[in-house]
Amino acid sequence: MAVAKVYVTLKDGILDPQGQIIGKALKTQGYDNVSRVRVGKFIELDLAGETPEKLKKQVDKISHDLLSNPVIESYTFDIQEEA
Amino acid sequence: MAVAKVYVTLKDGILDPQGQIIGKALKTQGYDNVSRVRVGKFIELDLAGETPEKLKKQVDKISHDLLSNPVIESYTFDIQEEA
Repeated sequence: MAVAKVYVTLKDGILDPQGQIIGKALKTQGYDNVSRVRVGKFIELDLAGETPEKLKKQVDKISHDLLSNPVIESYTFDIQEEA
Repeated sequence: MAVAKVYVTLKDGILDPQGQIIGKALKTQGYDNVSRVRVGKFIELDLAGETPEKLKKQVDKISHDLLSNPVIESYTFDIQEEA
């Protein structure tokens, strides 16, 4: 079995209101050294079978088609084989 | 400057409706080898100054107090120093 971890983040230049709010909250709590906050999604998939190459292709397709909005978001992922 | 990446996930045993819906969507699209989907948050913080130990403490406190709900969520993070 393999576990794929997909990280979906807003592209640079896309407004991130949630991140801005967290940034403001941190400032009011005295964390003055935090200059920027960005919020994204983190998705874990448990996958069975397939070769590493096929898994990579599959997770890439799933991330692109279902887990992210390619217009405003980008994604990265890594796949870990588990016993 | 340092970049902290915080991963917030639901604790085991906590119902994840969003993950279940994605799992069902994947099944209807023919991805039968995906057995489990969990959705979490991914937060990136840009931090200035401080020693690595202080940064670690600070990010741990921020993650615990502000970025996660410790009752139902757990978090991990890693900090990368940048030039």
